[in-house]
Amino acid sequence: MKIIVLKFGGSSVGTIERIKKIANIIVGYKKKGYKPIVVSSAMSGMTNDLIRKSKSVSHSFNPSEHDVLVSAGEQISCSLIAGRLNHLGHKSQSWMGWQIPILTEGMHSFSRITYIYKKKIIDYLKLGGVPIIAGFQGLNSNNRITTLGRGGSDASAIMCAKFFKAKKCIIYTDVQGVYTTDPNTIKNAKKIKVISYEEMLEMASLGAKVMQPTSIQDARLNRIDIEVKSSFVKKDGTKITKRKNIISNKIIRGISCTKNDAKVTLIGVKDRPGIAASIFKPLSNNAINVDMVVQNISANGKETDLTFTIKSEDLIKTQKLIQKNTKISFRNLIVDKNVSKVSIIGVGMIATPGVTYRMFQALAKKNINILVISTSEIKISVLINKRNISKAILALHKEFKLDK
Amino acid sequence: MKIIVLKFGGSSVGTIERIKKIANIIVGYKKKGYKPIVVSSAMSGMTNDLIRKSKSVSHSFNPSEHDVLVSAGEQISCSLIAGRLNHLGHKSQSWMGWQIPILTEGMHSFSRITYIYKKKIIDYLKLGGVPIIAGFQGLNSNNRITTLGRGGSDASAIMCAKFFKAKKCIIYTDVQGVYTTDPNTIKNAKKIKVISYEEMLEMASLGAKVMQPTSIQDARLNRIDIEVKSSFVKKDGTKITKRKNIISNKIIRGISCTKNDAKVTLIGVKDRPGIAASIFKPLSNNAINVDMVVQNISANGKETDLTFTIKSEDLIKTQKLIQKNTKISFRNLIVDKNVSKVSIIGVGMIATPGVTYRMFQALAKKNINILVISTSEIKISVLINKRNISKAILALHKEFKLDK
Repeated sequence: MKIIVLKFGGSSVGTIERIKKIANIIVGYKKKGYKPIVVSSAMSGMTNDLIRKSKSVSHSFNPSEHDVLVSAGEQISCSLIAGRLNHLGHKSQSWMGWQIPILTEGMHSFSRITYIYKKKIIDYLKLGGVPIIAGFQGLNSNNRITTLGRGGSDASAIMCAKFFKAKKCIIYTDVQGVYTTDPNTIKNAKKIKVISYEEMLEMASLGAKVMQPTSIQDARLNRIDIEVKSSFVKKDGTKITKRKNIISNKIIRGISCTKNDAKVTLIGVKDRPGIAASIFKPLSNNAINVDMVVQNISANGKETDLTFTIKSEDLIKTQKLIQKNTKISFRNLIVDKNVSKVSIIGVGMIATPGVTYRMFQALAKKNINILVISTSEIKISVLINKRNISKAILALHKEFKLDK
Repeated sequence: MKIIVLKFGGSSVGTIERIKKIANIIVGYKKKGYKPIVVSSAMSGMTNDLIRKSKSVSHSFNPSEHDVLVSAGEQISCSLIAGRLNHLGHKSQSWMGWQIPILTEGMHSFSRITYIYKKKIIDYLKLGGVPIIAGFQGLNSNNRITTLGRGGSDASAIMCAKFFKAKKCIIYTDVQGVYTTDPNTIKNAKKIKVISYEEMLEMASLGAKVMQPTSIQDARLNRIDIEVKSSFVKKDGTKITKRKNIISNKIIRGISCTKNDAKVTLIGVKDRPGIAASIFKPLSNNAINVDMVVQNISANGKETDLTFTIKSEDLIKTQKLIQKNTKISFRNLIVDKNVSKVSIIGVGMIATPGVTYRMFQALAKKNINILVISTSEIKISVLINKRNISKAILALHKEFKLDK
């Protein structure tokens, strides 16, 4: 069977008119000889409305009941899609997580899919039916409804593609694909035709608007080809696949940036083995994620300066934790909320020398000062002053010919 | 265990404020030593909104998917109630039909409960938990969600009371109970303290605003005591129980009336054995319900006049069916849409002679002409001109001292 998974996000099923539209998209795949398995989110706005209700009932709403509450949204959208396909003369039926069942493990609101029973769905596909599967939800070993957290419907789609051995997984959403950089900031941003899982993961700050990193990682591990495309505009989207499927001479695939980072510098830290661990342990214990880290070599071997970045919302907590940390001693604590991390991403840089130099030079030409640098195999990130973001991205976009 | 079933209708859970209020009611029963099993409808307006959505998707929406769609409403209200009880420090959990499971048979949208599995709920009650059960829904043998039709949450409550052997079933709604007659028409109408199942069934036209006849019949068959009361006003409601539990010297319990009847008269019907069957068979085949029937004895033994009542909305269809009926012959067809049926109901009339006479005399005194009469063991109905409804009910209400 030529199984294809079609996933529709909340905005794609946000109104009755849009549900009618995506029903036609589904019929299109059926006519091309595919056996579509549809995974749907709740109609946009629905989940937020339910969350608002839960908050008016209790500020510490029971997580298990919260999952019961918010999963009602997908029940509505899935039955409406199935009803529309029936109306168009196609056999179709909705399936909630408990009906398949889709088994999950882990905490309520953050569960992970561990297994999807195949028989009922495969039998239904053989009869020519189109199953409409509720995204975002599953069932745990206590027979309770669970949900998969933010972007959970993507996770449902990827896992369906895995368990049902789909040829392809298409993520229909409200953007046309993944861009070389944020098209709202840089008008020359180009839609990327094809991108590797690894690049897509590094593009998190851009990619998250399209797909959650955990789903991309699941797709990578299971070698599932994804296409992200718009349910409103009939155009090719962005394919996400393994590196060796990609023939492209681009060194850099895209440029991403963060907008809510803060920089913390400890001046004159008494240096000793394990000092970095002493600084970061309390942060880690408080779920504060440290991103870039730079430690200067101390001139006299006794003192050092240490700089790191965190999310701005963690800044006050971080300052308190450092100040009351009795295991470290330092002369001064400097913080800066006006910073932003700009990254260039591309598997091509592995085989291409001089990329780092080209990046730094392009920024230097625009008088943009680099505060911190960090690199990975397929990414180079620099921390710069927030006011320079657009200028920096534009310069890099041009330098690496992403607008061509 | 002192199990009590508490059922809350759509208006009782219509807003977050009301959900908070009924959570307090539930806690009240728990504090009195009861083990409450809660059955809830969807928040008022929710089901209608979902039905509206289904109609915009398809005018012949698949009944199976329609049940999936509309049952999402109870999932929302039940999780919110459980969440509120948790917030107040009480162990509570929602249960959808499929989780218990509540088994049903019959067509989608009109299913009947055949069995409720007890173990999980009883175990939960023993642990001190308050189960919040979704009304209106169940599961059929195909593992699909079913719904129980109009007033379905009442049916869920009565069946829960039956299977869990509850001491009592309390129906919380937006009226304070059952009245001697419609309080919107007759301001002297009094709330009835206690009424027999049989009287309640005969009061259908009044009672339907409170409970569907099928649920009352289920309660009667299973000898379940019901109390109908308001979730907004803290006052005793109306108890519905078996006749012998009622000590009351009232002959008449209440007065009901219909407002959408039509009268059809066939003049000069050629009389022969089986003529009535020939007239009514095509109506029955077209799901037209014939209520009161009067056949005059023909003077010459060859012709007869036949009068019957139907719902006004069936009138045009009825006229067409009679006119094209080749098995009957008659001189004239007269119809009247300005009629109304007024009934006095009471088990007391069985043992009390002269009730019929008192009814007719009270109407005669007010110059109200009786068009058709029909009687049952505990009810006398008369058909009168619609303009006389209020005058007739007022006269009867006074004659049988219902305002005392």
